Amino acid sequence: MAELQTQSLKICDQVWINVNLATFSNTAVDQYGSLRNYALGIKNGLVACITSMSSVTATQLPFNVIDGHNGWITPGLIDCHTHLVFGGHRAQEFELRLRGIPYQQLLHQGGGILATTRATRIRSQEQLIKSALPRIKALALEGTTCIEVKSGYGLNIEDEMKMLKVAQNLSNHYPIKIMSTLLIANTIPPEYAGRVDGYVDMICDELIPSVVSEKLASAIDINCDCTTFSRQQRQRLFETAAESGLMLKAHAEQYSCNGGASFASFYGAHSCDHLEYISEEGVEDMAKAKAIAVLLPGTHYFMQSKHCPPVELFRKHHIPMAIASDTNPGTSPLASIRLMMNMSCIFFRLTPAEALAGATINAAKALGIDSQYGSIAIGKTADLCLWEIDHPNELPYQLGHCPLKQRIIAGSIVDDYQ
Amino acid sequence: MAELQTQSLKICDQVWINVNLATFSNTAVDQYGSLRNYALGIKNGLVACITSMSSVTATQLPFNVIDGHNGWITPGLIDCHTHLVFGGHRAQEFELRLRGIPYQQLLHQGGGILATTRATRIRSQEQLIKSALPRIKALALEGTTCIEVKSGYGLNIEDEMKMLKVAQNLSNHYPIKIMSTLLIANTIPPEYAGRVDGYVDMICDELIPSVVSEKLASAIDINCDCTTFSRQQRQRLFETAAESGLMLKAHAEQYSCNGGASFASFYGAHSCDHLEYISEEGVEDMAKAKAIAVLLPGTHYFMQSKHCPPVELFRKHHIPMAIASDTNPGTSPLASIRLMMNMSCIFFRLTPAEALAGATINAAKALGIDSQYGSIAIGKTADLCLWEIDHPNELPYQLGHCPLKQRIIAGSIVDDYQ
Repeated sequence: MAELQTQSLKICDQVWINVNLATFSNTAVDQYGSLRNYALGIKNGLVACITSMSSVTATQLPFNVIDGHNGWITPGLIDCHTHLVFGGHRAQEFELRLRGIPYQQLLHQGGGILATTRATRIRSQEQLIKSALPRIKALALEGTTCIEVKSGYGLNIEDEMKMLKVAQNLSNHYPIKIMSTLLIANTIPPEYAGRVDGYVDMICDELIPSVVSEKLASAIDINCDCTTFSRQQRQRLFETAAESGLMLKAHAEQYSCNGGASFASFYGAHSCDHLEYISEEGVEDMAKAKAIAVLLPGTHYFMQSKHCPPVELFRKHHIPMAIASDTNPGTSPLASIRLMMNMSCIFFRLTPAEALAGATINAAKALGIDSQYGSIAIGKTADLCLWEIDHPNELPYQLGHCPLKQRIIAGSIVDDYQ
Repeated sequence: MAELQTQSLKICDQVWINVNLATFSNTAVDQYGSLRNYALGIKNGLVACITSMSSVTATQLPFNVIDGHNGWITPGLIDCHTHLVFGGHRAQEFELRLRGIPYQQLLHQGGGILATTRATRIRSQEQLIKSALPRIKALALEGTTCIEVKSGYGLNIEDEMKMLKVAQNLSNHYPIKIMSTLLIANTIPPEYAGRVDGYVDMICDELIPSVVSEKLASAIDINCDCTTFSRQQRQRLFETAAESGLMLKAHAEQYSCNGGASFASFYGAHSCDHLEYISEEGVEDMAKAKAIAVLLPGTHYFMQSKHCPPVELFRKHHIPMAIASDTNPGTSPLASIRLMMNMSCIFFRLTPAEALAGATINAAKALGIDSQYGSIAIGKTADLCLWEIDHPNELPYQLGHCPLKQRIIAGSIVDDYQ
C-alpha cells in the first residue's frame, strides 16, 4: 500500500503505530476497508501517511508516537440527523402514554411537539446550550466527532434563528463538529392556526432569507410528513428552499407512503430521512437524484413502527444508507449512535459493516461533507477514533461498555481514555 | 413522616439534604414511593433517618452534609439476571448471521453457546475477571449497585466452579455487590454428547454438592428451555436443587409454552425468568408459589422474539415483575440496565414506575434480598443513587446522557460525578 504514503511518517505531527484501520475508503479487502497492522500519520490536522507496519523502521518515526496495541482506528462517528437542541423534556408525557392516556388527549392538553415549542421558546440561548451539552457529550463519549443539529421547534423567525445559533455555538463549548440545518414545515405554531398560507409566506419570505443571510445553516430540511401542508404549499417551500442555495433534505414517508421522497428527489434533495413507507418507485426516484437514505432506527423503535425501511431496495438501487439517532424529546430521546448502529442491525438487518458505514462515510455523504470527512484517506480531515477491539464488527454488536480509547478531531486528541 | 425518623440527623455519618426520594417502600403517594423535599441520613452503612426538610434546622445537621439540589435519590439499581462472566465474544457470529448464514450452520461450525464454553474453559480466573470488569463498570456507571451473575458456560465441575469464583471475586475488584448463581442444564457439553443421564448424574452427584460445600452460590438456576433434557431428567435436577438449600430459579418458557414455569413453581422456584410464552395457568402456578417474574427485554429485542411476556396477567395475579439485562455474548450483549428499563416500557408497555421497581425492589425480591436491598427505608442497607433529574420517570425515558451524580454502596460514596 505504498501508494497511500504521500508524506513520510517522520514529518508527521503525530503517528499511531500498530493499528488496524477501518478506512471505509479502500474497500478492496472487505466492506470496512480494512488495513491490518498499519501506521497512520497526521499533519496539520489531515491524514498525511498510511503505511504498513512491515515497512516502518524506528528511525522513520517522529517524536509523537502512540502505540495502538493492535486496536482499530475508524473514522470519527457522524450522527447526521438530530434535533438535540430543545427545551424541557417529555418524560411525563411518556409516562402518561404508558399509563394508557391516548396521544390525542395529551395533544389536546398541550402535550406533544407544541409542548417542546413552548419550552424551547421561553429558554435563552445559554439555557438551551446547557441542556444540549449533556446530549452532545453522551454522543462524543461513544466516538462521535460530528453531529447535525436541526432547528424546528421555534416555529417563528426569532426562535428558529435562536436554535440555529445555539447549534452553531455548541462547538465552542465542546470539541465536536456541528452541522446546522434549518428544519421547516415541522408543524404549525398556534399563532398561525388556520393560516397555513400565511405561515408558508413567513417561512419563504422571511425565515429562509434571514437564515441564509446570517449563514446560520448549511442545509434546509422540509418535513414532508406533516399533513397540515397542502401539496401546493409544500411545492412552494421546496422551490424557495431549492433557490436558497442551501443543501436540501427531507423528512419523508415515516408514517405513510405519500410520495414525499419522490417529491423531495424531484427538487434535488441530498438526503431523504426515515423512509419506513417508501415505495420502490420512490426508491428509484431517490436513486436518480442520487439522494442518500437516512435510516432512523431509534424512532422506529420508540414509536414501535410496524414498517421497516426497504433496505433490500436501497441495496438493489445502490443508494447509500446512513443511520442517525434522530435525538429528540418526543420520538427518540436516545442520544446514542452505538445504540442506533445496533438497532439498525437488529431491526433493519443491516450488516455490521453497513451499520458502521452508515455512521461514517454514508453519514458524511448525507451531510455533503464526504470529500473531507467520514473515511480515512490521505488528505482528509483527521477526525478519528481509536478503539480497543478485535474487529470493528464489535461496535454494532455490543452495548454497555464503550471500548473507545481516543477521540481525535482535526488531528487533536480531544478525549483520551488510555 | 415523623415516624420514619428513628435516629436524629445529628448522629448520622452522612446526610443528604434537599433531595426527593423514590423509596419504593412507601407507596401511599404514588408508585415510586415519592417523598419530596426530604433529608436522608445514613449511619453504619444503613439508612438511619428520613425526614422532611420542613422539619430540619441547621443545628440538627452533622458535619458531613451533601446538598442534593432538589435531585432524586433512588435505591441503587439491581441487575438480577446476567451471564456476564464469559470468555471471548460472538461479534463474528453476529456478523455472519446478518450476512445470511443460518444459525444451524454456525452451530455446526462450532459457533453458538459451545463457542463461549470453549472460550470460557481455556481462560484463567484472572482473564475472566479482566474481561468481565468492563461490563461491571458499564452497569455501575448507570447506577447499578448489585448484580447477579450466573455460571453455565463451564459445563463441567472445574469450569463451573471457576466461573462462580470469578463472579464472587468481582466485588474485590470493583465496588459492587455480586450475587452468584449456579446455572445448570444450560446445554450439554460435547464430552457428554449422547450421555445425558451421565451428565445429570455429574450435576446432581458432584457439581451441586461441591458448589454448596464451597459456598460458591446463593442460588441455583435450572434452564427449563433446553430441550435436550427429558421431563424425568429435569425432575431429578429440580429435586436435587430443592434439597441443596440454595434458592431456586428457572429459565422458563422463552421459546415455547412448555409448562416450565409451572414445573419450576411446583418445586418452589423463587423466580421464573424470560416467560415470553407462559400461559395463564403457568402464571397462576407462579402466583401460588409466590414466584417473581423476571423479564428480559434485551434478549427479547436481540432475538427479535415475536411474543411478549403477559404483563397484564402478571398485574392481574399480583406477581412482582423484575427486569434484568441478561448480559451474555449470544442473545443479549447489552450491559445496560437503563436500556432494559427503556425497552421494558417500549416492548412490554411497563410504566416507568414499573420499570424502575423492576430494577430495584422487585429485582431484590427476585434475588431474595428485599428485606435489606431494593428500597429506601429505615434500617435497610444504604445502597443508593443520587440523580440530577426532575422526576424518576426520566430514567426509563431517555438514554445517552446518564444523570447519575453519586453511587452509594453500604453508605459509602463509591462514584461521585458532582
